[in-house]
Amino acid sequence: MTTGPPPTLRWSGGIDGHLRLLDQTQLPGAVVEQECHCPEDVWGAIRALQVRGAPAIGIAAAYGVVLGARPFLDGHLPVLAAAARKAADLLATSRPTAVNLFWALDRMRKVADIASTRIQSRELAERLLAEAEAIHNEDRQQCAAMGQHGAKLLSDLPDPAGILTHCNTGALATGGDGTALAVLFALHAAGKAIRVYADETRPLLQGARLTAWELLGRGIDATLICDSMAAQLMYEGRVDAVVVGADRIAANGDVANKIGTYGLA
Amino acid sequence: MTTGPPPTLRWSGGIDGHLRLLDQTQLPGAVVEQECHCPEDVWGAIRALQVRGAPAIGIAAAYGVVLGARPFLDGHLPVLAAAARKAADLLATSRPTAVNLFWALDRMRKVADIASTRIQSRELAERLLAEAEAIHNEDRQQCAAMGQHGAKLLSDLPDPAGILTHCNTGALATGGDGTALAVLFALHAAGKAIRVYADETRPLLQGARLTAWELLGRGIDATLICDSMAAQLMYEGRVDAVVVGADRIAANGDVANKIGTYGLA
Repeated sequence: MTTGPPPTLRWSGGIDGHLRLLDQTQLPGAVVEQECHCPEDVWGAIRALQVRGAPAIGIAAAYGVVLGARPFLDGHLPVLAAAARKAADLLATSRPTAVNLFWALDRMRKVADIASTRIQSRELAERLLAEAEAIHNEDRQQCAAMGQHGAKLLSDLPDPAGILTHCNTGALATGGDGTALAVLFALHAAGKAIRVYADETRPLLQGARLTAWELLGRGIDATLICDSMAAQLMYEGRVDAVVVGADRIAANGDVANKIGTYGLA
Repeated sequence: MTTGPPPTLRWSGGIDGHLRLLDQTQLPGAVVEQECHCPEDVWGAIRALQVRGAPAIGIAAAYGVVLGARPFLDGHLPVLAAAARKAADLLATSRPTAVNLFWALDRMRKVADIASTRIQSRELAERLLAEAEAIHNEDRQQCAAMGQHGAKLLSDLPDPAGILTHCNTGALATGGDGTALAVLFALHAAGKAIRVYADETRPLLQGARLTAWELLGRGIDATLICDSMAAQLMYEGRVDAVVVGADRIAANGDVANKIGTYGLA
């Protein structure tokens, strides 16, 4: 991505830095980064869907906690820890459906809670930033692993393989290469011929605005379709696999996801 | 409809009159009538979907043939008949999927063909107008009959009955009260409680722009949904019947219709 668009989200600078988000409400028309300097900025960006996708929301919120603690670098440790917890409480109200959000905020709260009185405020802030970066890095690795595992599962599909997508589960939804869409990127990188049909995904058109943009940007054969065309494509035998995201996965394998997923299933 | 919006289409005046179409591309934002004074106007209106729905297209085209013949009221009969046939040829190229278009144009061509040399040009023009008006009136009667027959079929549905629609099959699609949607109007008029879910119907949103507008205008409980929500509503047991239009119906009952119909079926 060195010459491509900026990443979905990145922390810029050290503890005095800020969070930069690729504003997904402006894609694909304009590639614009949004700067976040306080938890309220991050809260607003999640709320406005400038950053979206459960993993990306979790990472953004973790950095948001760092931004909440940061004004108290030279103050008393309990003040900084309380500010971090307050930021976490605020960010938890930004998007009720993103389970990664609560999970990431819990990790950040634990760092704030274990603060020993022997460390400096600045050191706790550094630990919070390190935790946010760890969440970000682990997501990159999970995306890569999901891509590899999924690609293996789909390696026996016909050549070319017709694959239907719903909503956006790509790099734009995560800190890495994506979740479900990472599987397609891994298949493509391995030389497998794939033909992707991207549901436009009403009402907010994440498939049309984001998924099609990501696929074409990587040189993958992609066709944008109305959500209502999917059944007909299946009837015509053009769909060998469907990959969708998952807001939640139950122990029995049931998946809760974006409206439209049930009809595809 | 005396105090409501203007009808979908109406011939205004006698043989020297013109066709007025309710411009459906501007609904529901603006209620504007488009005047057609020549066959090219009608051709353009069909092409631009200002008038749409197979029955309405057929009626508009029939009036378009009158408009083609009309400049030759005082000329030789064969000239007027040839102008009518030329208008029919032009209008036949406006919309390949509307079977009513070809059927209506054939009726108009037959009137032009049976022209005896004993009648005046003006009389042939009057006969063409009478044929167009007959097509229009027959459509009104067919809509009313379809509404009554359909309402009888659906009279046993629960109270209230949940009914899903796709695209627009109402008054806006016809010269009367509609085809499939006329069934709902008849049920509502008979005092049956119905709750309608209108698919927005991508890509052109006829359900969102036209069907929802028609239903609400008649005081019917209507909810606009994304096409991809239909399967979930069915799963939840909220849909007791689905009514859709039909571009074509085969002898075995198979129906060809707008994209999205197969998924509903």
